[in-house]
Amino acid sequence: MAAAAAACRLLRLAPRRLPSTNRLRFPPPLPTPLAAASGRRRFCAAAQASAPATAAAGEAVGEFRKRLRVSDVKGGEDEGAAWVGKELAVRGWVRTCRAQRTVTFVEVNDGSCLSNMQCVLTPDTEGYDQIDSVTTGASVLVEGVVASSQGGKQKVELKVSKITVIGKSDPTSFPIQKKRASREFLRTVAHLRPRTNTFGAVRSYSLPFLVARVRNALAYATHKFFQDNGFVWVSSPIITASDCEGAGEQFYVTTLLSNSAEGGCLVKDIPATKDGRVDWSEDFFCKPAFLTVSGQLNGETYASALSDIYTFGPTFRAENSNTARHLAEFWMIEPELAFADLNDDMACATAYLQYVVKYILENCKEDMDFFNTWVEKGIIDRLNDVVEKNFVHLSYSDAVELLLGSKKDFEFPVKWGLDLQSEHERYITEVAFGGRPVIIRDYPKEIKAFYMRENDDGKTVAAMDLLVPRVGELIGGSQREERLDHLEARLDEQNLNKDSYWWYLDLRRYGSVPHAGFGLGFERLVQFATGIDNIRDAIPFPRVPGSAEF
Amino acid sequence: MAAAAAACRLLRLAPRRLPSTNRLRFPPPLPTPLAAASGRRRFCAAAQASAPATAAAGEAVGEFRKRLRVSDVKGGEDEGAAWVGKELAVRGWVRTCRAQRTVTFVEVNDGSCLSNMQCVLTPDTEGYDQIDSVTTGASVLVEGVVASSQGGKQKVELKVSKITVIGKSDPTSFPIQKKRASREFLRTVAHLRPRTNTFGAVRSYSLPFLVARVRNALAYATHKFFQDNGFVWVSSPIITASDCEGAGEQFYVTTLLSNSAEGGCLVKDIPATKDGRVDWSEDFFCKPAFLTVSGQLNGETYASALSDIYTFGPTFRAENSNTARHLAEFWMIEPELAFADLNDDMACATAYLQYVVKYILENCKEDMDFFNTWVEKGIIDRLNDVVEKNFVHLSYSDAVELLLGSKKDFEFPVKWGLDLQSEHERYITEVAFGGRPVIIRDYPKEIKAFYMRENDDGKTVAAMDLLVPRVGELIGGSQREERLDHLEARLDEQNLNKDSYWWYLDLRRYGSVPHAGFGLGFERLVQFATGIDNIRDAIPFPRVPGSAEF
Repeated sequence: MAAAAAACRLLRLAPRRLPSTNRLRFPPPLPTPLAAASGRRRFCAAAQASAPATAAAGEAVGEFRKRLRVSDVKGGEDEGAAWVGKELAVRGWVRTCRAQRTVTFVEVNDGSCLSNMQCVLTPDTEGYDQIDSVTTGASVLVEGVVASSQGGKQKVELKVSKITVIGKSDPTSFPIQKKRASREFLRTVAHLRPRTNTFGAVRSYSLPFLVARVRNALAYATHKFFQDNGFVWVSSPIITASDCEGAGEQFYVTTLLSNSAEGGCLVKDIPATKDGRVDWSEDFFCKPAFLTVSGQLNGETYASALSDIYTFGPTFRAENSNTARHLAEFWMIEPELAFADLNDDMACATAYLQYVVKYILENCKEDMDFFNTWVEKGIIDRLNDVVEKNFVHLSYSDAVELLLGSKKDFEFPVKWGLDLQSEHERYITEVAFGGRPVIIRDYPKEIKAFYMRENDDGKTVAAMDLLVPRVGELIGGSQREERLDHLEARLDEQNLNKDSYWWYLDLRRYGSVPHAGFGLGFERLVQFATGIDNIRDAIPFPRVPGSAEF
Repeated sequence: MAAAAAACRLLRLAPRRLPSTNRLRFPPPLPTPLAAASGRRRFCAAAQASAPATAAAGEAVGEFRKRLRVSDVKGGEDEGAAWVGKELAVRGWVRTCRAQRTVTFVEVNDGSCLSNMQCVLTPDTEGYDQIDSVTTGASVLVEGVVASSQGGKQKVELKVSKITVIGKSDPTSFPIQKKRASREFLRTVAHLRPRTNTFGAVRSYSLPFLVARVRNALAYATHKFFQDNGFVWVSSPIITASDCEGAGEQFYVTTLLSNSAEGGCLVKDIPATKDGRVDWSEDFFCKPAFLTVSGQLNGETYASALSDIYTFGPTFRAENSNTARHLAEFWMIEPELAFADLNDDMACATAYLQYVVKYILENCKEDMDFFNTWVEKGIIDRLNDVVEKNFVHLSYSDAVELLLGSKKDFEFPVKWGLDLQSEHERYITEVAFGGRPVIIRDYPKEIKAFYMRENDDGKTVAAMDLLVPRVGELIGGSQREERLDHLEARLDEQNLNKDSYWWYLDLRRYGSVPHAGFGLGFERLVQFATGIDNIRDAIPFPRVPGSAEF
């Protein structure tokens, strides 16, 4: 493939002179002391000053530079106007190709932004003889000069002097086609679905392409927020043989099934004890091991040494829920704050949520405009409310009073001691507080986990749920029970085996401190921030019952 | 526990006036519009402007502020001198308590840095009656005034006016004791081991406490490097039922073993087909599913749409290796660059490594000094070499020539076609190139993976290994085979089933582009950057054969 070399970075065409406004948008040079090196191989050549007499051959590695991308050209305030007259090379994938009488318009996308580069070809363009291969999905290198665009959709376009088809895409077999681009179908071609964002009249579009950049921005903003506030990222374990985790709804991790005969593992070959049970002592970890459902307990051990930590990693539920709200594999963010109570926890959750939402509103404008237009009308207003409006908190007891006083006819009963349902949560945040995010705190201890700190009333625990309009619960957290005697009593109440929690109890035996934390499902956050209704479109490769393809 | 409330942030004592140099070290205020709120609960109170007539109760959530930590005081150039005379409160854990004739020295660590705050108590100090509880491991709140220290070990200390014991630590049972603080023992108390860094004469210290901050800095620097260069973080799946992954050395993920009777899963209850094999159609994903060994193939699908991506997530090997170099669960960084060849790949790997090493040298000075003194003498020089010296590359063929010409007596044979061993790699980088990092490229195709791009010579592939002194291979990468016919031929050569790779091949059928990437084991990077010899100390909760505790 002769086009391969031409498509690579070393031969890229840069504009002769970068407009100064755009030049500023590149990051400063990397801290590399490397001299620019030729891309060619030269045996027994220079750069050998420090090598000893053994005829060592080698050349300096070339310099790495941020690649010029469509977003660098069109992403600025002027939408590319400062680039008019400059030479440019764009590498990307063809979205559409429309031949008119004298010119052909090719929309090329390089993934750096939603926008395509509109490329204008004429029969005089070098490489025009390959125009039949310039079809949807094909990869191309287009070189030319930036010009003002006469169309209303964009400020600039590329007058192409040369087009090179890098990789063809047979239009009859390319799976991503308008007529069958339903989101359900696109999930069956998850390897190609990030390649398209067709939309408009047919209202079908590939969310992953759009979601990927917002998801990335939310993840980076998460790291920035916690790092700026002195938190240490801790990787909680994925595989755990700890007895602390509830055995229900967990995936087993094992090598016992891989001692497989040709054609698949024979059940009779699975190691068994004398009484016919699976012999875990033969397994990789010598006992049953699971995929983690939460990194919280592990996180607490590190918060009890480093003060403030956060986890950000995958967690798992073997729950047989085939809904638009559940994934078997999802990413969780779980900060844990030492020397902190529930008020600190609520303040941290609020500041975190406002920070990441503000970050994407400022850094993903084009994508957010798309979601605002095509996915959830008004989402930008909704997110601005989150950034700008005061969050409020009220106790569970007050929330129950409020619901009972509303005279509204709810489907589920409202009564002190029962958990709040989605309809209740939405009423509180959407109606009672007029769209403000609300934190409900101090829930009855019977409906909350054993590790939550008992309040002085003996009936409630220092738990909190953060509710946002339309979505409901987004964050759940609590102050943790730091008093050994209270924690042991709670384990007994819930019929949990104290021996299994020996190390968790140790944290209360030695230098225990008040501490608190919360958990946030990352894909829920992506849904909340984009308005997409199915969580399977919030992650590149969703895992759900019956499906772990790709 | 009365001390609990006092230990929390809302009641923290801040210095009356921050010295201006230190003030600059706090991040700018978070973008929160929240007014400061009282920490007390007020029913039916203010802040209700937008609430409707339904008597909604609620208060504004308090403001979240970065907590003042020991590193903020002692971490500056002046080691805290500007804080002399200021009031301060420190919350942390007691490392040592030494009573002298008139004063008692208590070393308190809050996890923000290696340094303790030396706290000076006298019998007049409020709370001195609790001094018997101020033992190693106990948590305390100390309040006082910063003073110049007369000891040589630190510039400042805290003259304590009041000490509050938050959580006691029974000195006879506290597991972390000098006399048995071997690293092997400390791994058995992984929940407490980040709580200590005793070292010195006994040369036993807890690496996790030290490693945690460097590990965190390396992770954040990784995100910064790729984000600054326009890469999108993509979460590759953890569970996969893809047939692409080699079945050997993988963990099975299953729910078939959880249909457990009381006392453990009965083998006879495991769903079986008529011929006695495990019936995967009954499993959660309706087919065998595994923990991923690499996110590369998935990453390629997103690079083929977004151009430049990186993964950063856990990967797994069910390898029965009980060595200091292997983990069953480890984190991998796998960037993938579209429109890139092997030269671009080498340049990216080099720039990345230099960036993250420079980052920790600049941001983890105190920790690196510790590693330089106690763990690997000269490690700072070694890392400075990586940042400052030119990386060189040479072909595998040249490397073989070089080794053969060295006249050195290697344990393993050197011959074109055989893989290079650790001794060969170290000779090349340490001796032949005098300590410069070296990339070896263009390996024989027989010893490399099917997806690596075949070079024009028909004998080698565009693979590269990045070698660093002392450690050997740190990064492995390649240009990927983007030509459909070549890739299919390679699959055939290696007796791999093409049908299993349908989606991977699709990337070459539709809009294929030259692309390249590399993989880096994150814990290896942590080892390389800290000099610790056992990879089990490079991750908070190591998973190895026979052990997945905590």
